[in-house]
Formats: sequence, structure tokens, C-alpha cells
Amino acid sequence: MNTLSPYADLMYRSRQVALLGSCSSVLGWDQQTYMPKGGAAFRGEQLALLATLAHKQATDARVGELLGQVEAEPRPADSVEASNVRELRHAYDRAVKIPPRLVEELARVTAQANEAWIEARAKSDFSRFAPFLEQIVALKREEAAFVGWQEHPYDALLDEYEPGAKSSQIRSLFAELSAGLVPIIRQIRGATKTPDATILQRDFPTDRQHLFAESAAAAIGFDFHTGRLDTTTHPFCSGFGPGDCRITTRYNPKAFNEAFFGVLHEAGHGLYEQNLPANRYGEPTAQACSLGIHESQSRLWENLVGRSRPFWDHFFPRLQQTFPSVRDVSADAFHFTINEVRPSFIRVEADEATYNLHIILRFEIELALMSGDLLVADLPAAWNEKFRAMFDLTPPSDREGCLQDIHWSFGGIGYFPTYTLGNLFAAQFMHAARNQLPDVDAAMRQGDFRGLREWLIANIHHHGRHYRAGALCERVTGTPLRVQPFLDQLKAKFFPLYEVS
Amino acid sequence: MNTLSPYADLMYRSRQVALLGSCSSVLGWDQQTYMPKGGAAFRGEQLALLATLAHKQATDARVGELLGQVEAEPRPADSVEASNVRELRHAYDRAVKIPPRLVEELARVTAQANEAWIEARAKSDFSRFAPFLEQIVALKREEAAFVGWQEHPYDALLDEYEPGAKSSQIRSLFAELSAGLVPIIRQIRGATKTPDATILQRDFPTDRQHLFAESAAAAIGFDFHTGRLDTTTHPFCSGFGPGDCRITTRYNPKAFNEAFFGVLHEAGHGLYEQNLPANRYGEPTAQACSLGIHESQSRLWENLVGRSRPFWDHFFPRLQQTFPSVRDVSADAFHFTINEVRPSFIRVEADEATYNLHIILRFEIELALMSGDLLVADLPAAWNEKFRAMFDLTPPSDREGCLQDIHWSFGGIGYFPTYTLGNLFAAQFMHAARNQLPDVDAAMRQGDFRGLREWLIANIHHHGRHYRAGALCERVTGTPLRVQPFLDQLKAKFFPLYEVS
Repeated sequence: MNTLSPYADLMYRSRQVALLGSCSSVLGWDQQTYMPKGGAAFRGEQLALLATLAHKQATDARVGELLGQVEAEPRPADSVEASNVRELRHAYDRAVKIPPRLVEELARVTAQANEAWIEARAKSDFSRFAPFLEQIVALKREEAAFVGWQEHPYDALLDEYEPGAKSSQIRSLFAELSAGLVPIIRQIRGATKTPDATILQRDFPTDRQHLFAESAAAAIGFDFHTGRLDTTTHPFCSGFGPGDCRITTRYNPKAFNEAFFGVLHEAGHGLYEQNLPANRYGEPTAQACSLGIHESQSRLWENLVGRSRPFWDHFFPRLQQTFPSVRDVSADAFHFTINEVRPSFIRVEADEATYNLHIILRFEIELALMSGDLLVADLPAAWNEKFRAMFDLTPPSDREGCLQDIHWSFGGIGYFPTYTLGNLFAAQFMHAARNQLPDVDAAMRQGDFRGLREWLIANIHHHGRHYRAGALCERVTGTPLRVQPFLDQLKAKFFPLYEVS
Repeated sequence: MNTLSPYADLMYRSRQVALLGSCSSVLGWDQQTYMPKGGAAFRGEQLALLATLAHKQATDARVGELLGQVEAEPRPADSVEASNVRELRHAYDRAVKIPPRLVEELARVTAQANEAWIEARAKSDFSRFAPFLEQIVALKREEAAFVGWQEHPYDALLDEYEPGAKSSQIRSLFAELSAGLVPIIRQIRGATKTPDATILQRDFPTDRQHLFAESAAAAIGFDFHTGRLDTTTHPFCSGFGPGDCRITTRYNPKAFNEAFFGVLHEAGHGLYEQNLPANRYGEPTAQACSLGIHESQSRLWENLVGRSRPFWDHFFPRLQQTFPSVRDVSADAFHFTINEVRPSFIRVEADEATYNLHIILRFEIELALMSGDLLVADLPAAWNEKFRAMFDLTPPSDREGCLQDIHWSFGGIGYFPTYTLGNLFAAQFMHAARNQLPDVDAAMRQGDFRGLREWLIANIHHHGRHYRAGALCERVTGTPLRVQPFLDQLKAKFFPLYEVS
């Protein structure tokens, strides 16, 4: 060790912490996929230990000393090395503020909370989850207090998922988005032409859905030599590290949408993970830029590619071959129905337009939980009231309401807004890609996604966290993140389908 | 921490090391079951880190100091606490002799070697595995040198699996066993009455085999709330910790034997793991006594229960219901064919009698590899020569020869002899159980295994490693480990079946 330069020593230590985190990822994936029910408590102990060890290594006083040394060394501002030092400093300053006791408690409570959430959701019984969520909110408020914040305690949590982002910025982006989105949704909902939604509720045998979705994921470039697809209650993507990335989905034999677009979504995340700079694994800049950028990749493949007409020019004949139940359906009717805009209860099943209202609702609830304005006990009522105001619908049960998402059970407060940031980034990136790749639609019609994939790899994936999300966006698209490309894209797709203007 | 007594502090540390080991177990299970091929190298890095951390914690100088303190405290010699101190001292003295560099190298090399072995076995190409095995043998010889030994370097490795055992004792046990076994096998092979082996090669659809084996495992008491059954190349049982134990098997639709008795075998291991003292998890005495004792539990359920006539009085009608292909077979014919004695190439498919010859062969080869008398390059030839001498058969390929077992790929030299020790322990335990539970056969005929299971739990499982294997055997059966009960059991079962005497 004493032969390493301070910089190399830092990178070595960073790699050890990343490796420990990756062990937790394997245990977390197993917990969602194959772990027997009785293993939950013990899994909590394992995860708590790994989290504690990782935190201990990341906050080792020697890391602070080494950081001080390397910051004094001259480095080109735009170099990967300088970015590594910047990100390590950011992570270190955050981590040392959080006491190990809190890290361990959060790991243990969230492991139990996840099991409680699964049961609470299955039985639509919020009271089974509430005591765990209360502990989680209390611990996250404690965490925010330790980390510190200027405008809102929420900022301290948001930073973990979207480094450098502030809730005030997101508030104003979301306000602009809402102002543009609500009239678009109103126009679409007022259209006389509507898709035949029953098409997607015909017979789609689960095993065939699995094979069809797997083939589409492979076609867009998800590598099954270094990845796999499993079934879980809540779909996710977990990139363990170079050579191993797992995606999951859930099947409903009477709903084609759910698994198929879910798999394209997770495969989009997977493509990002599979193309991060593997040779620098463990360096801070070799990880994903932010969750917003991560989500831009999943959303781009799910919605901007997977729900496009060119995509189905290639896949529709294959779909009809696989599922006899849709052999009498036209490609146009199918394309229209997978793009139905309809306010609904479940976020992950929502369409491209109303999806963002789900996020705005969660963002507002999380802000209130963190400020203390909303108590966990009042959450179901607050959720349903907001839902009525935004969607003009009342969730029939908490299962279709505040219990639908896994995030709070793992302590992921601050995570939701990154989904809508992802939608915005995706539209802006796709706009830029189309300008630079004029034949992208023609290639897609042939089932050829290489051009788009390689553009994304070169412009986004390979940079990892070398640039922060805002800087990356400007670099790739020429401007900071904007709402307009997303709104334009919605209108360009939905207005012709619904014959409004 | 400073409020803990030295003894409590030691137990806390022991628990942390056990938890780290259990994380490795999850990663190891995943590697065998679901990991994509491309993940092997990275998995090696993860496992190496966990092994290094566990070794670092186990060899922490503070553990040595605490051991010194607690050894000076008075404790009843037969107390669990005294046994915990004894076992921790044993493990500590061994661990501190092995340099961390060696631990890390072994973890990394074996992860790669495992992938190489899978491919080498599939292609029956020893050359793909040889370079890894050479590294492993060199590292294990190094390990033996660091640990130290008096009679044979093999003893240093054996001790890890069968604490306190010596190769000289095993040599003499095996010599006595061989002397008794060879004439028995000769008599059986000379019989004119033989079973119809084709019964087991009829149609046994894989999905039904899975359900049938799972139901039998549940019937003997394997708890699926805290366990699961998956498919792997090489079947195994991995008890992660309280509440989570995984067993695996492999299916052949034209061979009933393989998966069914494999599952009973692994479920026998699983029962042991599921009934270790969970409230003391992480204490040295809360782990399995030795691999020989572990194997006695799997062998007892696989052979002494699962291949017995009372067992099939209950299960045979269910077998015929599940598999139409055996509806014309009599219970007697079926019981005879699952007890066929026939020298064969594959250890895990071998019958109760010839099985032990496979072990004696491996034991002799391992002794020679460790002493340096045999080079890895000469292994296939040595294997085949010994096989001819003992079985009068020549393996048609290395796949059916020296490549058949996973053990060497994970560095498990010293492991094989514990299988035959397990057979001997099993016969001696079952003899004692029958004396104490006169209605055990009548209960089995009703599909009721509770009496036997509870006897094993109370007499063996619950003790964990409180007693060493030899002492446990004497305590449970009244005598040290002997060969005779095993030979008696063989004769009692096989001579009537084959009509020899």
C-alpha cells in the first residue's frame, strides 16, 4: 500500500467501497427475487453489516488526509482525475457527517420494512407498513439534519440521487411542466377518437411474454451474456459491476403493456450500466451520472423508442406471430392503444403524459413528510386528496394509492423526482440524437438500434459521472435542461394519434 | 463496545465474521444458480474482498488479546462457553498463520477455477482446468506449510473440514472399511438375482420430478418457508444463516435416481442447518460440528431412510400417481432397483456400497497431490489407473473421471474423506436411533418422520459444535466411530435383496 501514490491509494479505496456496495446489491437482488420469506430478518443483519463496513471504509480518516494531499496537486480541470477527486470529496464530506449508528439502523429497518411493505401492499393494509415508514421518515429527517441543508431538508436527500440538485429548482421545473402538461392532457382527453384499450387485455401467456420481451431487450442491445431477466413484485435494474447486470419485471397474462414496456425500461437502465467505463470500475466517475440521467436512458428506450411507430414496424409482425390473440389487430390500432393517455392509479402503468403528475404528487408529499408538515399516519388521506385534485379520481384502496411503490420501504425519499427529470432529459437527448442521426427512424424500422445505442454510449454512458447531470446535458444538447422538448415530443406524438391540434 | 465483557466482545466479533462469511455464501449460491456467465471475473473480486475482510477480522490482534483474557477466566469444562472459547482459539491459531495475501489469492483463483471447471467438465477437456488446479494445489500446499503439520501436510487441510482428524486415522479406518467392503461387493456382484435397472430410466418429466422431490423434502421436515430448492450443475446445500437455507439438485428426465435422492441428501444437510441453535448464531459452537457429521445427516436421510422399504411403503403409491411410466412396476421391484449395487463412474450416482471406493480413490490422490508425489498434469492417468484397479472399469472420458466433481475447483482438498466418515457416522447414529425409537419403521410407513427428525435434532443438531465429532459420536452411540455398524447395515439390506448370505 505504501508504494501507491495518494491518488492511486484513493482510487484503490474507492474501489473497495464500491465492491462492498456491489455485494449488497447481490444480496438485495436475491432478497427481491429468490430469498425465502423466512430469511428477511437475517438478510437485514447481513445488509446492515455490509453497509456499516462500507460506510466505515468510506469515512476512514485516511481518506480525508489523502483527499487533502491530492487536492493540493495540480490537475487539468477537465480531466477524469480532477472529476474523481471532486466526486470523492463530495461523497466523503457527506458520508463523514452521518454517524455509523444511523447507517446501520437504516439498513436494518429498511430490510424489515421491505418485507412489511410487500405484505401491506398485498393486503392493501397501510397499518402494516406505517410503523416502519414512521421509523424511516424519522431516520431520514435525522440524516438530513446531519448532512445539513440551506433551503429545505429535502435537498440533503435529493443530493444523494441527483448530485447538486435543489428542491427549489425542481419545484420551478415541475411548475412549468405542470402548466404545459395539464392543457395537453385536457386536449387529449377531450378528443373524440380513442384507442381500443381491450386489445392489450387479451390473452398474452406469461411464458411467451417472457420470450418476446427478452428478444426485444436483446435487440436493443441488452447483453444477456452479462445480464439476466427475472420476476419480482417491483421491477428494477441492478448493475452489480462489470459483467453482471440484472433486470426484473412482472407478468400479467391479461396485460401486455406491463411486462413488455417494463422490460424495455429496465433494459434501458441495463444498457447504461453495461456500458459504463468498466476498466475504471470503482472510481467515482465510472458510476452513473445521476438517477435523472439513468432514468433518461430507460425512458428513452421505453417510450421514445418502444412506443414509436418505427419500432413496431419491425416488431408488430413478430408480436402477431407470438400472440394469436392479436392477429386481427392492425399495426395502427396497436400503436394507438400502447399510446393511450388515460389518468390511472398506478404510476408504473401510467402513460407518458400523466406519468409526471404521479411524480409531482409524490414530490409534494415527500417535501411535507420531510418538513414535518405531514405525519405518516395522515399519508393515505393526504395522498387520496391530492390524487382527486390532480386526476379527478379516488384510489379505490391504498394498494392502488400510497402503498403502490417500493421506494419508501428502502428509504428512497428524494428518489421520485428523478423519474420526471429522466423524462425531460430523455426528450432533450432524443431531440439531439435525431439531429445528429438523420436515419435513426429508418434503421429502427429494420430492427437496427445500433446507431442510436452507440450514440448514447459515446455521448452519455462512457462519461459516467465525469460531468454532472446539468453539464452533461449542456454538452450533449447545447442547452441546460428544459421542459419544452418534452412537451413538443408529447404533442408531436399524441396530437396526430388523437386527431387534435 | 467498551461495555462488553471480554467474552461477549469475542462472541460479537465471531458473529461479525460469520455474517461476512454468510454474505459470501449468498454470492457463492448465486454464482452456481443464476449468475450470468460474464459475471465470473467480477464475482471473483467480490468474493476475494469478503474473504479478505473476514480473515482480517478473524485475525485481529484484539481477538488474540481477548482470547488470552477469557482463557484465564474460570468456566465449567462442559459449558457451551468453554466450547466457544476452545473453538475460537482453534480457529484463531489456524487463521493467524495464513497470510491475507494467500486468502485473497485463493478466493480469486477458485472463483475463476470454478468457471473453468464447468467448461472443462462440459467439454471433457482437462487441459482447460489443469492450469487453475495447478495454482490451487500450489496455494493449498503453501497453506499447509503455513498452518503446520506433524505427520502429513494433508492433516493441515483435513482439519478445516473435520476438526482434529488426522490422515493416519482415516487411512486405518479406510483400510478396515475396504477389507470389509470388497468381499461384500464381490458377494453381491456374484448374485444371480439382479434388479431391473431400466425401471429408473423410464419417462420422469423434469417438472414432476421437481414437485415430487420437493414434497418428499417437505415430508421429512425441510422447511420451505426458510429454504428453497434450485437447479445447479453440482448439487449442494448452503445454509446462509437462521431462516435461510438453500438446496439444489439437477434433473435428468431419463433418470429418477439422480434428482430424487440428491434432494433427500441435500434436504438432510438442510435439516441440520435449519436446526442449529439459531439464537446463538455466529458463536463457534452454533455451527455444524464437522463435515463428517454434516454428511451423516444427508446420508441418513438419503440412504438409510430414503432407500428403505418403510419409506417407499408410504411414497410408492404417490410415485405411481405422479409418474404413469412406473404404474406397472411392483413396490418390491422398485425398492430393489433403487438399491442396485453396480460399480460405476460417477460418485454422486454411486450406490451405498461402492460409493466409498470412490472416496478412497480421491483420498489417495489428494494425499499424493499434497505430498508432491503426483503432479496435476499426471492426474487423469493416475485417476484412470486407480479406477481400473478398484472398479475393474476404465472411465470413458475425464468428464466421467477426474473432472466429475466440483470440489477441487473451490480448493476443497481434504473434503472428500468426510463423505465416507459421514456414511460411517450415519450407520452408527441410525443404529442408536433404532434402539431408542422402536416404532421408527412403523411411523415411516405412515409417512411420519417426526420421531426420527426430533431425535436427530435433540441428539445432534442442537449441539452444533459444542462437542467435537468423536465426542459427539461417543455421547450419542456409546462408542467411538466404528466401521462395523456400516458393514452390518449393508449386509442387512443388500443380502436379502440379492438373496446372498
